[in-house]
Amino acid sequence: MNKVINTILNHRSIRNFKDEPLQDEHIKIIVESAQMASTSSYIQAYTIIGVKDRKTKSKLANLAGNQSYVEQNGHFFVFCADLHRHACAGKMENVDVQMSLQSTEKFMVAIIDASLAAQNAAIAAESLGLGICYIGGIRNNLEKVSNLLKLPKYVVPLFGLAVGVPASSTEQKPRLPFDHIYHEEVYQQNETDYIDQLNKYNSTISSYYNKRTNGKRKDRWTEQMATMLSTPKRTNMKEFLQGKGYLKD
Amino acid sequence: MNKVINTILNHRSIRNFKDEPLQDEHIKIIVESAQMASTSSYIQAYTIIGVKDRKTKSKLANLAGNQSYVEQNGHFFVFCADLHRHACAGKMENVDVQMSLQSTEKFMVAIIDASLAAQNAAIAAESLGLGICYIGGIRNNLEKVSNLLKLPKYVVPLFGLAVGVPASSTEQKPRLPFDHIYHEEVYQQNETDYIDQLNKYNSTISSYYNKRTNGKRKDRWTEQMATMLSTPKRTNMKEFLQGKGYLKD
Repeated sequence: MNKVINTILNHRSIRNFKDEPLQDEHIKIIVESAQMASTSSYIQAYTIIGVKDRKTKSKLANLAGNQSYVEQNGHFFVFCADLHRHACAGKMENVDVQMSLQSTEKFMVAIIDASLAAQNAAIAAESLGLGICYIGGIRNNLEKVSNLLKLPKYVVPLFGLAVGVPASSTEQKPRLPFDHIYHEEVYQQNETDYIDQLNKYNSTISSYYNKRTNGKRKDRWTEQMATMLSTPKRTNMKEFLQGKGYLKD
Repeated sequence: MNKVINTILNHRSIRNFKDEPLQDEHIKIIVESAQMASTSSYIQAYTIIGVKDRKTKSKLANLAGNQSYVEQNGHFFVFCADLHRHACAGKMENVDVQMSLQSTEKFMVAIIDASLAAQNAAIAAESLGLGICYIGGIRNNLEKVSNLLKLPKYVVPLFGLAVGVPASSTEQKPRLPFDHIYHEEVYQQNETDYIDQLNKYNSTISSYYNKRTNGKRKDRWTEQMATMLSTPKRTNMKEFLQGKGYLKD
């Protein structure tokens, strides 16, 4: 196992950072790492907003559901899907690109591009001894986050990435069984085996919580998921995205 | 600069692989690396299909637009957005989760989860001396790709990842200017500066092609983008996704 794979396999989300701002040199190398991710047909359909200002971070923390580590970290990055510069490219070249930009396909491209870039940023940060935590919570209040960061049309905040010097660490949470995530040649067709894997995983997770909480929690994974998914969240997403110019076709 | 960041910054897409299948041990570590990526609320909303069979790879290459490296590589991974197991979790727990699964928000979560996992896989592969190339082309014929890989409801192939021993390498393509991708505190508000950055980048790209092709190509980036975006692609995407159970709300 090499150092790169060790870094990847050692990942855990950090939710408790020292009050120590990231060095500018580290911010630079993290963003440059993000930029080197693959991008669909060279489209580079994302933008990263770096937030240092404590007041802005405090507002973001509030909008994201009062997670303290959105405010207290070394640096807060917001990864955005961005086809604004492509709208500009269309204007500069006097070509009508609107039909493309509003397509579901291009929104997917922008999300994928932004996510590949973000994961490079995350791995680069972790390799520097920093901790990271993705913050999907900024999607709780997209309109307000968008206004706060002054995002134009075609720019959608997807998630935050809190980065900083870890003040404490956590245990790794066991992932789904390998064979449940990775299927050979075709999707696993045997439903009994499929459910068996989920039941096996439920036992793993239940033991994990039992041990970690001294018997206070014993949730199964399917139970967690079913509870979480019983109530739809962020139900105004499509409306917000369409307001940004996306997902019209 | 450490080895992890060196690996990240050294990335280039490889489109020419030796006829040498990936070792099983490497497949395992690549998938395990993917699994360690962050996942939104532990949802793990993706599946990876590993294709070794030459006939299947040949069919995929054909469906993806006849890219030879989709057939000729060490291993072909297909990353799928997957909420099928969450539909199963709902059934197992006797909870109605359909409204959540069909929401735009949850489709975004699944794309982000799959993409973060994929980038871990890509970096892990590159750290082993392997080359990689993302294949968005499989979205050209999603219905046929989905049938070939026998994907159930809520499983959407997002992109392929061709991995193998590089037979030849390529130059790195220059990325957008740092300040155009990374904005401090708020999105860059000065449109003149914004356009200036794109013009500067156009010069960089034009020189790059000029040099690489001995004067045969001198495309500007905005020109490439405007040309590409002048015709919408994969216009049946929304219909396909809705057929899979997604994007209904």
